[in-house]
Amino acid sequence: MWGQSGDHGSMSAPVAPAVLAGLLGEGWRRPGASAHALADALRGLVVDGRLAVRTRVPSERALAPQLGVSRGTVSRAYDRLRGDGYLVSARGAGSWLTLPAGAGPGAPPPVFGGAPARALDLTIAALPAPEPLLGECAARAATALSRYSAMLGCAPAGVGELREAIAARFTERGAPTTADHVLVTAGAQHALHLLLSLLTTPGERVLVDAPSYPRTLSAVRGARARAVPVPLGASGWDVAAWDAAARAVGPRLGLTIPDFHNPTGLTMSAGDRAALAATAARSGMLLVADETNAELRLDGPAMPAPVAASDPGGAVVTIGSMSKSAWGGLRIGWIRAAPRLIRELAAARADVDLAGPVLEQLVAVELLARWDEVLASRRALLRPRRDALVSALAEHAPAWTCRRPRGGLSAWVRLPSPVATRLAAAAAHAGVHITPGPSFTTDGTFEHHIRLPYTRPPDDLARAVQTLSQLATRVGGATAVEDDPAPAAI
Amino acid sequence: MWGQSGDHGSMSAPVAPAVLAGLLGEGWRRPGASAHALADALRGLVVDGRLAVRTRVPSERALAPQLGVSRGTVSRAYDRLRGDGYLVSARGAGSWLTLPAGAGPGAPPPVFGGAPARALDLTIAALPAPEPLLGECAARAATALSRYSAMLGCAPAGVGELREAIAARFTERGAPTTADHVLVTAGAQHALHLLLSLLTTPGERVLVDAPSYPRTLSAVRGARARAVPVPLGASGWDVAAWDAAARAVGPRLGLTIPDFHNPTGLTMSAGDRAALAATAARSGMLLVADETNAELRLDGPAMPAPVAASDPGGAVVTIGSMSKSAWGGLRIGWIRAAPRLIRELAAARADVDLAGPVLEQLVAVELLARWDEVLASRRALLRPRRDALVSALAEHAPAWTCRRPRGGLSAWVRLPSPVATRLAAAAAHAGVHITPGPSFTTDGTFEHHIRLPYTRPPDDLARAVQTLSQLATRVGGATAVEDDPAPAAI
Repeated sequence: MWGQSGDHGSMSAPVAPAVLAGLLGEGWRRPGASAHALADALRGLVVDGRLAVRTRVPSERALAPQLGVSRGTVSRAYDRLRGDGYLVSARGAGSWLTLPAGAGPGAPPPVFGGAPARALDLTIAALPAPEPLLGECAARAATALSRYSAMLGCAPAGVGELREAIAARFTERGAPTTADHVLVTAGAQHALHLLLSLLTTPGERVLVDAPSYPRTLSAVRGARARAVPVPLGASGWDVAAWDAAARAVGPRLGLTIPDFHNPTGLTMSAGDRAALAATAARSGMLLVADETNAELRLDGPAMPAPVAASDPGGAVVTIGSMSKSAWGGLRIGWIRAAPRLIRELAAARADVDLAGPVLEQLVAVELLARWDEVLASRRALLRPRRDALVSALAEHAPAWTCRRPRGGLSAWVRLPSPVATRLAAAAAHAGVHITPGPSFTTDGTFEHHIRLPYTRPPDDLARAVQTLSQLATRVGGATAVEDDPAPAAI
Repeated sequence: MWGQSGDHGSMSAPVAPAVLAGLLGEGWRRPGASAHALADALRGLVVDGRLAVRTRVPSERALAPQLGVSRGTVSRAYDRLRGDGYLVSARGAGSWLTLPAGAGPGAPPPVFGGAPARALDLTIAALPAPEPLLGECAARAATALSRYSAMLGCAPAGVGELREAIAARFTERGAPTTADHVLVTAGAQHALHLLLSLLTTPGERVLVDAPSYPRTLSAVRGARARAVPVPLGASGWDVAAWDAAARAVGPRLGLTIPDFHNPTGLTMSAGDRAALAATAARSGMLLVADETNAELRLDGPAMPAPVAASDPGGAVVTIGSMSKSAWGGLRIGWIRAAPRLIRELAAARADVDLAGPVLEQLVAVELLARWDEVLASRRALLRPRRDALVSALAEHAPAWTCRRPRGGLSAWVRLPSPVATRLAAAAAHAGVHITPGPSFTTDGTFEHHIRLPYTRPPDDLARAVQTLSQLATRVGGATAVEDDPAPAAI
């Protein structure tokens, strides 16, 4: 696919060979068929958002030595990507990544050639809508809409009654809040985008959990900021590491997911919440707590109070969403912050999308009025599915380890060998799509892990685990890659 | 207001004194009371989005000589802004612009101290919702929503049936279009934000009309790109100037509003559409045509075909919205472009807000099914109001000139003297809020113009014009400012 008019929209510098090698990690290497494997891995990076579309790739001459492969291998990989519609070249402008028809967000990872109809897509951790409850709330909202028909201007911070309902829910959960602390967004991703747009400048460093939600990492990249990973410990947050990173980097923003962390499922202790908030206040860092999963507790100990409850004053920003606790087709989220920051975010939001839709916000008001019912319906779906996944793993993959999830939507499974990327590729050929550990990192690590959502029906989950465990033993052969030293940078 | 934790989110470089002086223009200067006038003007810049919140202001020492006033004057202006909550200072971090409660988007321009209850806000060009039509469509959409309740993933490009309905409307209007050419957005502002995010890099230059819609200019600034104004002629676009600018700058994007241009009301001729599209194709520039007002023709000659109909291939991108033609509380817009660019935008959009709400998109499908009724209801409201404004101007302000609007929502009025900024300030004190010409520019020019929407009821418009014409003669005294040479930059 060669460039036409309009393709000059990709003249920025190519991604550095060393950065690209880091993103690729080592998991893609397979004995023989290197060009094929390299093409698959590059496709994976753009499909799951770790590389932006329109990212220019290095020249074959520059990339080959970095990867320790021949120029011919890189050349054949690029040809393959060009043929499949993932790479565009224009004379004088080099080559950059793009997406063919059917690829990209929402589509099954086409890095593996498109899923058959009966494919099991476990890359998405989401539930169907709570019916008939959602329909009832939508009908009531449609009736209420006429109350707003005289409205002329937009309300970038959100409709007053929804801001109040969201504030009331924070107060119930232990963080006293008023409407002027709340900005209604189109979801947690939108909330993060607004915060990054207002509070970071290109090249600036932002602290993030390692591992972390892929779209958190791509939002940081989208803001042209640089994610600085702070590793999670096996049982929780390393408060000392956060404190050291805050001192060393002096970041304006730190992003974390304190409740049923995606992907590890960990929940931050009350003590760690207070310590991290104090670190933020001390270092002038805004700690952004993503509470997307906070209301999805299934069992186990009661949840600690929101991080915002430990805020010594303006150091903690909370973002949340109805996408997981209600439905992803509903685009409602929020930011809780100091009133002045909320006003500044509202002004900045006017440049992004002016304001949110009134009807959608009224649906959210109706849902919050029946919030206990909404959450009960989610838990009723999730508990048996969580149990089914855990039993299937015990039965079919006894060598794999994972903590029994107490909430959220997925399990973080550790494999006995570092084959996550190859397992994901093999599984996709067998019609089971999963997200390998490296997708949750900035550096291609976590080849020992895969994320398995338990949002599908029990039978699907059992079938998926069976398939995966069989394939794991097959691809498990060459497990030495993680121990291979990466070829030295030239 | 002194900084607290979290205020370090504004450490970028201050706006250059020369840039700030340019934005301020000369219209703010008043004999005496310079500090007061300077504070008002600075407030105006942040309130109407010409300066971003969190923009750092220059030191008093740096700004005073640039403006040709004393340091004391700048110091008193900054003190005033600090007192009113528009400026924050933190030791070591300088001072930056912010917003106090009640200010910012949606609020009446508080540069003039907050509007009384019965104030006439003519800064907003928008209509109430088309009822009962909107309510009926919302009710039908609420019922249809259950068809989507099994949906798990998001559809960043939009719900299929809406993409098809939007494509069909383009085809009806003379630009044959299929669903894969369409991305559904949350409005034209969101569409512009996505295009700028994907296709520009910081510091890059983007061609824009002069004058142009303030939010178009602030979206360019929000993307950290630089707007390069191409002046509109008295009767239309200067195609030669666009061609020269495209050759000189080599921009990737050019932004224009071809139908009932905001604010001038001009409509681009068929010949100019073809010429501009050819210029874009020749120079590798994507010409972005904002059709927000395209469906609001009231009378006069038939509309030329959309600019997209003249596209030699991939050189024209069209953005549109239902905010003006249906209702601003509905957040639905679109981008029409080549399918590959649509896929790239969908991938980039996933980092901004993942996808749009399903229910809102179904309302849009219902509205498009009754589109002729929707447009008829808008015209029925707008024609008598347009006529009322034109007669009021003829009767009460005979010295003012404006072209009789044939469509869109506002008139572009030329005053006999360059007093737009002072007239807006005086009018606000009298409870009439208008947008002065300089708000539509990057350089504080157009002091001879004000924009008057005709979206309010006839009586309001007559009252507003009476007030404005009386005040204009009063502030018209010192009309020499435009001829004063600006103080030389130091």
